[in-house]
Parts: sequence; structure tokens; C-alpha cells
Amino acid sequence: MTSPPPDGPPRPAPRPGGRTARIRTQVLDAVHAELTEHGYDALTVDTVAARAGVHRTTVYRRWHDVGGLITDVLAAAADIDWHPRDTGSLRGDLAVLNHEIQDSLTEEPSIAAALIAVSFRSEEAARSLRRLWEDRYLQSEIIVERAIRRGEIAPPVDARALLIAATAPLYHELALLRTPPDPRLPDRAAGTAALAAQAGAFAGPPPPDATR
Amino acid sequence: MTSPPPDGPPRPAPRPGGRTARIRTQVLDAVHAELTEHGYDALTVDTVAARAGVHRTTVYRRWHDVGGLITDVLAAAADIDWHPRDTGSLRGDLAVLNHEIQDSLTEEPSIAAALIAVSFRSEEAARSLRRLWEDRYLQSEIIVERAIRRGEIAPPVDARALLIAATAPLYHELALLRTPPDPRLPDRAAGTAALAAQAGAFAGPPPPDATR
Repeated sequence: MTSPPPDGPPRPAPRPGGRTARIRTQVLDAVHAELTEHGYDALTVDTVAARAGVHRTTVYRRWHDVGGLITDVLAAAADIDWHPRDTGSLRGDLAVLNHEIQDSLTEEPSIAAALIAVSFRSEEAARSLRRLWEDRYLQSEIIVERAIRRGEIAPPVDARALLIAATAPLYHELALLRTPPDPRLPDRAAGTAALAAQAGAFAGPPPPDATR
Repeated sequence: MTSPPPDGPPRPAPRPGGRTARIRTQVLDAVHAELTEHGYDALTVDTVAARAGVHRTTVYRRWHDVGGLITDVLAAAADIDWHPRDTGSLRGDLAVLNHEIQDSLTEEPSIAAALIAVSFRSEEAARSLRRLWEDRYLQSEIIVERAIRRGEIAPPVDARALLIAATAPLYHELALLRTPPDPRLPDRAAGTAALAAQAGAFAGPPPPDATR
């Protein structure tokens, strides 16, 4: 996320997207800051507006309430032009993905950890977070397609199941168990999933009634 | 958990453990019911005492506050004499474990899901839940020992990493993503972990600085 622009008089060359996009960036950055510093209980439209330096009626008109703010934070994250890196191997690609997840959950402050916590308070946030995750898993299917093209694994492969197997231990340790981060876990979990894939663990398409 | 005994005059033959144990059962059952029906926000010592039919000063004296009640719910769960079932194979043992996890997270109401949610509200609850989980992983190491004795996998094996790999997809799908439960997931995740184990994914002892 970009930082909010410094206060000051209107500049002749506004940021791309103009005033509306700038206000959105300021407001969503303020949500990040309030969430990670004070948590969901203290989050209100008024504190966000004050921190963003935006008039409260502007925030109410566009985002309505805290649920609307959280949903838009997650929508903005989903809009980021993110692509999994091509390292030349399934194991390497999954390891890079896992390092990104471990970093996002252990950075201080962690907006990812804060949003997971919020998802246990708000059904709306839970739905938005799930949509973001499902988007990321879809975007990550290229990792599996590349592995098939390289001949590392044979189709058909249930890409989502493979990606969940690779990444779930990170979320389990860091978000649920809150184990102190083990710097080797991203590589280990990636290696396990790659070995299992090569052993045929994810053979077959996803189940037809899987909710994507 | 057992149900609270019906109200009535003192009986000549009290339940094993006597009055103190009986009151604990009543109070912890009341915590379960309040948590799953009304959530953590509505949980107070007074509502628990009223529901349990126990004098509020008794609850304050013994459990102090909501944190004390949640901690004792988790301690009681840890005290249950639980052993993983021996099905004759690593894959089968892990599948039974996973079915237990899936059932606990999808039953209505799910005290397991409610306690995970509470762990995002209270540091004390998070610590107690983590202790319970670490106990369960330790108790489940027998699954790995049996697989080694059967010759299914060769030592040394990082039993905790294997157990996390087998179970994490369940928690990820059901507790974090809130995907509608897939009845095949317990067996599939168990099969994946077993295949990875047989391919040598968890070779080696746990890392020396792993927090157990």
C-alpha cells in the first residue's frame, strides 16, 4: 500500500486517478493504521475520517460503515496486480509464495493478521477475505500449470488442493497456533507439497461441487 | 462434554468427583452454551452463573473472570482422555484424526469454532488454545510411531510437521476460509500427508529450536 500523500495545497498534477482515488488511498491507509494500532473494537468511521484528514460525511457517503471500509480494504488488496514468481521449479515457486505469506503474517504491524482477526468479528469481512483468498488461489494456479508444462507433475492436478496443502501450514502455525515464526517453514511446507504432488497426491480435477 | 445434571434436591449418591466437580461441569457447560449461542461479546460471569444455576460469587471466587472461564474450558478439553485410533495404517489413522477435526468444526453449535474465534479476542485464550493444540499434537505422535513400527515410513521423522501437514488444510478451509465442508477433505488431506511422508518429506527430527 502506498502512504497517504502529505497534507498541502492542491497540486497542479494530481496523482493518477485524481481526487477520488487519492481520498480512497488516504482512507484505506487510515483503516490499516487504526486496525493495526487499535484493533477492530476501536475502529469507527469517525476515527478513520479524522486520521485520513477527510471529512466524515465523505467517508459515510462512500463507505457507509466499518463493514464497508473493511470490505474496501480487501477489495483494494484484490485489485493489486499480483503474480506468483516463476523460479523455474514447482518447489521454488511454492516457496516464494510461502515466504510472501510468512512475511505478511509476521511483519509489524501485520494488516493480514489484523484482517484475519476481523473476519472472526464480521460476517461481511469474512466473506470479503474469503473472496480475496480465492482470488489469490486462482491467480496462483499458474504455478501448477507451469509445473505441468515443465514436466514436473502430470495432469490432471487439483491445483487448488495443491496450493492449500502448500500454504495451509503457514496460516495454521502463524495465524491459529501463533507459533513463533520458523524461517525454514516456508521452504519446508513448499517442499512437502511439491513431493506430495510428484507422488500423485493431487491427481484429478477439483471436485465438481467445490466452491471456488 | 456431559450435560448439566437436572436441578433437584441433593442426591444420596453424588456424581464421581462430588460437588466441586459437579459445579465445574455445570459452569463449563454454561460457558459452552453461552459462547455458541451468543458469542464472546455477550459472555459475562453473571450470565454464565445464571445459566449454570450456580451462585455468582462461587463463579467469581473460582474463575475470577471471563478469561478464567475460557482457560478452564480449554483445560477441561485438554484433560479428556483422548487417544488417536489405530486403524492399521498411517493414512487411516490420519483420516480418523481429520474426520474428528472436521466434525468438531462443523457440528452445530461448534465449541471448537467458537474457541478459535475467542482466541482472536483474548491473548489468554490464545495461549490456552495453543497449549491444547500442542498437547493434541504430542498425543498424536503415536500415529507416527506406529507408522514407523509398521515399516510404512523410515525414521527419523518430524512427527509434528507431519501432523500439521495432515490437519492444517482442515483448519484452513473450515476455520479461516469458511469453505462449505467437503466430506472428502479429511481423507484427501490425510492421504496427501501420508504420501509426502512416504516420499521423505518429513525426514529428520524437529528443528532444535521448535517451540513445542
